[in-house]
Amino acid sequence: MMQCAIYAGTFDPITLGHFDVLQRASRIFDKVVIAIVRKSNKSAMFSAEERLAMASDVASGFENVEADCFDGLLVEYARERKVNILIRGLRAYSDFEYEFQMALTNRKLAPELETMFLMPKDSHSYLSSSVVREVVELGGDIEDFVPQCVEGHIRRRFPIRKTGEE
Amino acid sequence: MMQCAIYAGTFDPITLGHFDVLQRASRIFDKVVIAIVRKSNKSAMFSAEERLAMASDVASGFENVEADCFDGLLVEYARERKVNILIRGLRAYSDFEYEFQMALTNRKLAPELETMFLMPKDSHSYLSSSVVREVVELGGDIEDFVPQCVEGHIRRRFPIRKTGEE
Amino acid sequence: MMQCAIYAGTFDPITLGHFDVLQRASRIFDKVVIAIVRKSNKSAMFSAEERLAMASDVASGFENVEADCFDGLLVEYARERKVNILIRGLRAYSDFEYEFQMALTNRKLAPELETMFLMPKDSHSYLSSSVVREVVELGGDIEDFVPQCVEGHIRRRFPIRKTGEE
Amino acid sequence: MMQCAIYAGTFDPITLGHFDVLQRASRIFDKVVIAIVRKSNKSAMFSAEERLAMASDVASGFENVEADCFDGLLVEYARERKVNILIRGLRAYSDFEYEFQMALTNRKLAPELETMFLMPKDSHSYLSSSVVREVVELGGDIEDFVPQCVEGHIRRRFPIRKTGEE
Amino acid sequence: MMQCAIYAGTFDPITLGHFDVLQRASRIFDKVVIAIVRKSNKSAMFSAEERLAMASDVASGFENVEADCFDGLLVEYARERKVNILIRGLRAYSDFEYEFQMALTNRKLAPELETMFLMPKDSHSYLSSSVVREVVELGGDIEDFVPQCVEGHIRRRFPIRKTGEE
Amino acid sequence: MMQCAIYAGTFDPITLGHFDVLQRASRIFDKVVIAIVRKSNKSAMFSAEERLAMASDVASGFENVEADCFDGLLVEYARERKVNILIRGLRAYSDFEYEFQMALTNRKLAPELETMFLMPKDSHSYLSSSVVREVVELGGDIEDFVPQCVEGHIRRRFPIRKTGEE
Repeated sequence: MMQCAIYAGTFDPITLGHFDVLQRASRIFDKVVIAIVRKSNKSAMFSAEERLAMASDVASGFENVEADCFDGLLVEYARERKVNILIRGLRAYSDFEYEFQMALTNRKLAPELETMFLMPKDSHSYLSSSVVREVVELGGDIEDFVPQCVEGHIRRRFPIRKTGEE
Repeated sequence: MMQCAIYAGTFDPITLGHFDVLQRASRIFDKVVIAIVRKSNKSAMFSAEERLAMASDVASGFENVEADCFDGLLVEYARERKVNILIRGLRAYSDFEYEFQMALTNRKLAPELETMFLMPKDSHSYLSSSVVREVVELGGDIEDFVPQCVEGHIRRRFPIRKTGEE
Repeated sequence: MMQCAIYAGTFDPITLGHFDVLQRASRIFDKVVIAIVRKSNKSAMFSAEERLAMASDVASGFENVEADCFDGLLVEYARERKVNILIRGLRAYSDFEYEFQMALTNRKLAPELETMFLMPKDSHSYLSSSVVREVVELGGDIEDFVPQCVEGHIRRRFPIRKTGEE
Repeated sequence: MMQCAIYAGTFDPITLGHFDVLQRASRIFDKVVIAIVRKSNKSAMFSAEERLAMASDVASGFENVEADCFDGLLVEYARERKVNILIRGLRAYSDFEYEFQMALTNRKLAPELETMFLMPKDSHSYLSSSVVREVVELGGDIEDFVPQCVEGHIRRRFPIRKTGEE
Repeated sequence: MMQCAIYAGTFDPITLGHFDVLQRASRIFDKVVIAIVRKSNKSAMFSAEERLAMASDVASGFENVEADCFDGLLVEYARERKVNILIRGLRAYSDFEYEFQMALTNRKLAPELETMFLMPKDSHSYLSSSVVREVVELGGDIEDFVPQCVEGHIRRRFPIRKTGEE
Repeated sequence: MMQCAIYAGTFDPITLGHFDVLQRASRIFDKVVIAIVRKSNKSAMFSAEERLAMASDVASGFENVEADCFDGLLVEYARERKVNILIRGLRAYSDFEYEFQMALTNRKLAPELETMFLMPKDSHSYLSSSVVREVVELGGDIEDFVPQCVEGHIRRRFPIRKTGEE
């Protein structure tokens, strides 16, 4: 079986936790698509274009990973791409119930679609995009939180404040 | 004892999970009131009038269910209606702690008021109004998620998009 | 509607938390049966006879509560008693998922049987029979943990050790 | 990539929930091994031989599933079989934290081994072997809980009691 | 060792739960600073000045408690104040995972900083600032929810509505 | 204030997670006592003497840590030692609710006793004595799970099996 999987999300921005899940998925499946939700009901810190640029940079480090954007229902996107497997990272510190709810809703909308959960490295399990955004906004250091190639994209928009500056 | 119970919420919109809880409550209590919170601190997708219309349609299928609206504190509304029992659905995938917090706050505000929790059918346990709203907004199919009479109300506002349309 | 409810459990021993749930149920239903599981797969500290004696003492303080024992499946017992409502206490510090699992299993075995969850008083929410047994075994004070009439039953079997004694 | 996965457990007995997870895994991977832990630290209701017979009957309904037994550490067994993927079912009503703990321990012992979690059908999510054992012991009906071919194995050991018999 | 601890938060407003945690911390540490986050990403009901006034009133009831405000990252503030211990209240009904996530993020940003969790009194464990705000907005009674000196501050902004008034 | 804290438990055996919590506590308090529960209601793998020997070896690496054993109620032991602070490690993957239940029970039995929770290093958060015991029994490698000085004690009782041996 040739198996392709979609790893969908807002990725606002991609964290080291996302990167770790991606890496694990890339070892198991023949191809993995990072699929960025263009319009999020949460107002995003980074535009869809910025988020796609980050994801493309991350994808370029893998042989079998592709970055893409989509609108509308994830299940429709998966059908268009003819992919049957969704990947989700499952962190102990994440909204576990939300993940289950989404997976069951997607299953109802598209029974042929299977959601598989992978665990990121334990030392990344506290990481989330919202924590990264909070640290970015307060001018903190993010090198332990995002892949190096993503840090550049963030710093272009949010240069590090020197202590003492407002 | 003649027992009446209030099933309060935003119901934005009523889901099959709510319907299931209502059905169970209607078999246990002499009368059940679906009580719609008029002003929600979350901005609602449907107006209080629309939500009351949906609830009234649902209520009309039962002999002992009535739909109503209220403002202000739920405990005040219960006192006015002279009702001592609140019904809440308890889903494994719901905000369980929020339910407990609300129940304990209401008990502090009105010690005579008892909150009883019922479990919806397991195959509805992933359902929530927010999931339904998300699917509605993205133009997905909702017939597995809401009672048939509610689907009509939703479709009047959000007609199904044909694939290919924007 | 004349409504009767069963509050089943091992009650090894009855705690103030159980007592509180019973009191709330007795205000809502016309009759409540405390139903003691005779043979528990956990080895009980108190015999079924002792546990029934405790429960009977507790029941005698209510006008509409009866204590009883049963063997076999709870759903069979409920059918024999022609009761359609099971009461469970739901503590934040309890095995919430176990409660759900049992309720769903019972619903599968007997769809006409409804499980309703009540919350004990918050200051009792940490209480469990196993905590009480542990304190009893280590010779600690249990007056804050069990109803007064139950304390007598326990003290007959486990007299308070004076400090210094082994 | 040709991908093989191990679905390990005590399977005492296999439930419809296990069966559902197996079915999902068999659609994703080229081969799936149901691997029965021979010696369990929990005393099993069914012997390793009985559990292997049940698993073999279940496996015979699939083209790419094999049943096997193992002793010792799961990570050693996976290395011997040259398999890099472990499958676990993740139920909302299961010991979620235990699953994470095991997955992280196995990752420490064998970093090349990836644990993937699949969700069983929602209407099976309350099912567990221990619930089934409890119903079996109390003489209840198990046809909604285990695959038909497994029911036969169980009934050979635990014939249905007629009502009224002890 | 002379030990000082920071108890940081939005405190919008301070509840009896916060007060209880503060009291416990004040018995353990030589000095405790209530540190109010000036700019919150959640829009606050009370201004930083109002919140500081409330906290100062609360602090004046203790010999070793001081109220203060800060901007930016908490870890930076702790470094400036040369404090190594953060205090957090841990309620069963709180966002437990959020607390862990924050504690681990702060540890990554400042490894010398230790987060210690204290449990408020069980009868306060359902209390949160958001519940208090909701009751305040709906005109309910808050005397069981906030310290007496804080109630005055709130009532200046939100006078109690007489029943019948809009 | 001179502050002493007790870190009590079965420690069967001490893990790197326990070690990490101990290290954090030793930096905050003037003195920390590792207090081993002599008789556990769970049958221990290691005798109280072995567990005390392990704890003493661990304690010898600190200047302000002492190992001790106790019988009976922890609250009695704390009173005898005139200590008012109990330390508990709080792992995301631990029995969080059990910890709360115990802390609240101890508070009821001894209101002057405060329980403080510390988080172990995230990469140790999956560790528990029961996981270590399971790996030990199955002959696996434990160097990533326990302090080096504890490994020696364990290996004296459970020598590493060579692959191929039974």
